[in-house]
Amino acid sequence: MRFDKSTNILIIGLGVIGGGYAAALTSKGYRVYCITKEEGDIAYAKERGIITDGTTELDTELIGRAELVIFALYPTVFIDWIEKNQQLLRPGALITDVTGVKGSVVERVQSILRPDVEFIAAHPMAGRERSGVEFSDPEVFIGANYIVTPTEKNTKAAIEICRELGRVLGFGRITELSPEEHDKMIAFLSQLTHCIAVTLMTCNSTPELEKYTGDSFRDLTRIAKINDKMWSELFIMNKSALLSEMDAFSLEFERLRAMLVAGDSEGIREMMRRSTERRSLFDKPKK
Amino acid sequence: MRFDKSTNILIIGLGVIGGGYAAALTSKGYRVYCITKEEGDIAYAKERGIITDGTTELDTELIGRAELVIFALYPTVFIDWIEKNQQLLRPGALITDVTGVKGSVVERVQSILRPDVEFIAAHPMAGRERSGVEFSDPEVFIGANYIVTPTEKNTKAAIEICRELGRVLGFGRITELSPEEHDKMIAFLSQLTHCIAVTLMTCNSTPELEKYTGDSFRDLTRIAKINDKMWSELFIMNKSALLSEMDAFSLEFERLRAMLVAGDSEGIREMMRRSTERRSLFDKPKK
Repeated sequence: MRFDKSTNILIIGLGVIGGGYAAALTSKGYRVYCITKEEGDIAYAKERGIITDGTTELDTELIGRAELVIFALYPTVFIDWIEKNQQLLRPGALITDVTGVKGSVVERVQSILRPDVEFIAAHPMAGRERSGVEFSDPEVFIGANYIVTPTEKNTKAAIEICRELGRVLGFGRITELSPEEHDKMIAFLSQLTHCIAVTLMTCNSTPELEKYTGDSFRDLTRIAKINDKMWSELFIMNKSALLSEMDAFSLEFERLRAMLVAGDSEGIREMMRRSTERRSLFDKPKK
Repeated sequence: MRFDKSTNILIIGLGVIGGGYAAALTSKGYRVYCITKEEGDIAYAKERGIITDGTTELDTELIGRAELVIFALYPTVFIDWIEKNQQLLRPGALITDVTGVKGSVVERVQSILRPDVEFIAAHPMAGRERSGVEFSDPEVFIGANYIVTPTEKNTKAAIEICRELGRVLGFGRITELSPEEHDKMIAFLSQLTHCIAVTLMTCNSTPELEKYTGDSFRDLTRIAKINDKMWSELFIMNKSALLSEMDAFSLEFERLRAMLVAGDSEGIREMMRRSTERRSLFDKPKK
């Protein structure tokens, strides 16, 4: 297949990410169709010109026409969809996804998929702490990171189309990792941070703390507003990598605690200087 | 003393917070003088109209004229200044501060201070991860929290002036806590968050992580760019309260880990729902 403005694009799952993809693609002149659960979300998206058309039905004609299908579903729902409905896909279709774990998802989907359809996985490193199409915002992709996770089953052409999709969506840095490398990276950068935010938000139940808070606590807990269904699924699907990152964090936290107990001011300052230096690498590139 | 636009205000320490106070007060028509270490900072602040005048000298006339003195120094430097120079303060002067720990600072300063000068402590819950007057921004105070920490040695009049200062600076919520309550609160809301951010930034040294990061990791580590001298001092001065908050965090983090090991999806989701609900209390009031 080719990927240009005449490509028939179908997004399955019009949530905060699917909606953002739809808005970005439509605004650049692509034709985007969608299938999603709620009638209201389709009405919302059509009204705002985010999609060309959509349905809540398993519309065989719509699916059969789609050349590029983007699955913006929970991992288990995505796998389930492929198991039940892949016979509806167009021969030669390319499918991609946005799921936050790759190892188990990519292996499962690629192993059961028809040979005339190719699945190239990708993870947009941008999101919102709210879910639903009404919180979608294509601006969050601008300058953000986009990770493509090919396997030996992928063709060069499909990898290139997936990268091109990332460029069209506005991502700033497009990289490739194996599914396993991705999951290790994500366990640290994304899942551990969510574990920490949730823990921080629930470990102290003193009333009225909000009256005294500053921005640092707000920043560290922004993502403590969390989609419990999706994130518990992501954590459990990536359990061993996440446990190992949690343990590395705990070990370093204990090291800081021990220095504090000992009043080791120089040790604490050295750790802070390292942290300051390392953090400067992570500033977001200007839009 | 009274506090109005004719009040002679002296800020000692023109860093990111002192500079922000100066800019806010000056923009509202108050006359602000300052004493600080660097000539360059005074030149910078005068050029931008942030202060009326300033000096790097221990100017006895300037100090002797000041009716309201705001110390924006590190805790130990503040105590040291009072020990060495309090004889220069004007009889009847009111002094306040911005330091991030209160118990040891307030007790020490109030116990050694001349009886004709009153110290009322306050903590502006707003800052910047950068230090220096060139990063000061009075906008950070707008809508933020401001905590006054009176003791039985303070007069009602002084407490009221300190609250009024908070209002003039633009703070949104002005509250009172005892120094001890303040330190317990701050151990959790501010110091623990800095411990976590620094730990997260130093517990994984995999190269090129920044190529793959999303905003959640950036948010959790914004404050990992840290003034090591000031924060190590704050941690150690509030050691016992901070250790107890670190331990409460670790206990809850271990509980999450155990649920993950057990694959207890419902337990994890319940914790996330609690976190989501509790976080909504902490949204910043709109400016």
